[in-house]
Amino acid sequence: MDPIPVLFVAGAVGDWRIDRVAPVRGEALPSAPRLARLEGAQGDLRGIWTLRGTTSHERYVTRAEKEALRAVQPALGRADSTHAALIPVRKSKEWWDLAQDERRRIFEEQSRHVSIGLRYLPAVARRLYHCRDLGGPFDFLTWFEYAERDADRFEELVGELRRSPEWDYVEREVDVRVSR
Amino acid sequence: MDPIPVLFVAGAVGDWRIDRVAPVRGEALPSAPRLARLEGAQGDLRGIWTLRGTTSHERYVTRAEKEALRAVQPALGRADSTHAALIPVRKSKEWWDLAQDERRRIFEEQSRHVSIGLRYLPAVARRLYHCRDLGGPFDFLTWFEYAERDADRFEELVGELRRSPEWDYVEREVDVRVSR
Repeated sequence: MDPIPVLFVAGAVGDWRIDRVAPVRGEALPSAPRLARLEGAQGDLRGIWTLRGTTSHERYVTRAEKEALRAVQPALGRADSTHAALIPVRKSKEWWDLAQDERRRIFEEQSRHVSIGLRYLPAVARRLYHCRDLGGPFDFLTWFEYAERDADRFEELVGELRRSPEWDYVEREVDVRVSR
Repeated sequence: MDPIPVLFVAGAVGDWRIDRVAPVRGEALPSAPRLARLEGAQGDLRGIWTLRGTTSHERYVTRAEKEALRAVQPALGRADSTHAALIPVRKSKEWWDLAQDERRRIFEEQSRHVSIGLRYLPAVARRLYHCRDLGGPFDFLTWFEYAERDADRFEELVGELRRSPEWDYVEREVDVRVSR
């Protein structure tokens, strides 16, 4: 898949109503009435805040993990996905100074990032946007979609990840919950 | 090191005189009299062509390789580095669809990318800029600096890399040679 640029615009318009904007670590983002997720958008839309990212190749998963994910991960935009979350994260300088083998070890062998995620598929659909190379205040923007009946499962998923060793390297995280 | 954005501008001004612009694979870039390498530049300078990138964390090297590189890699801007090369590269969709373990295996276990590079240090100073996540026509912009006496060594380096299995995945490459 070619990289797809995305623009998240929080403001007066957008498909999603913003239910809450909670700081998990570090500075929050301002609240706003609605959120638009604009994939492939060119140009520079203004909002109360905007975050820019892009899909990219996977940085840590092995071939076996990639196939396991591909077999069960659902598409975005399912009719019953009335709930979603945008979770922007910035990791620390310490994380980025690690070598690839060290980051991989923390990501999967210690934190089970892929294994945890797999247990919540296909209930939770997910798309990861990268933004570290674009500058801006975050390194990743993760977008999750799920049905109302899976709301508790989704809380379990983010709870598990936040308790993992990988999250020791997260220095800013905001949890934006939306619905439609 | 925090990511440093860079803008390469080929046009009427710049510290470097462009000696030749050679297409290695795929479409070339237009020739121009001079090249400017502007690190940290904001905004949107126009030239005959401009390429934008950013330094980023290493994607493949292990801790041991990172330390080995750090021990011998020289700084840019040495007084006797009167020769330089800007080599923009785009890799194929096939490369980017590989999983991390497959890309690593081709990069080092098969192609000896780090081992080859190490043999030419400290003669050749190098800085890798990433640009795949930024959009644009290339995935990487590599900048090399060396003294006139090391010009043959530099040809050996690029020759070795171009003969490696990793280069089967290169679908566009331009070799811009400059001097001052």
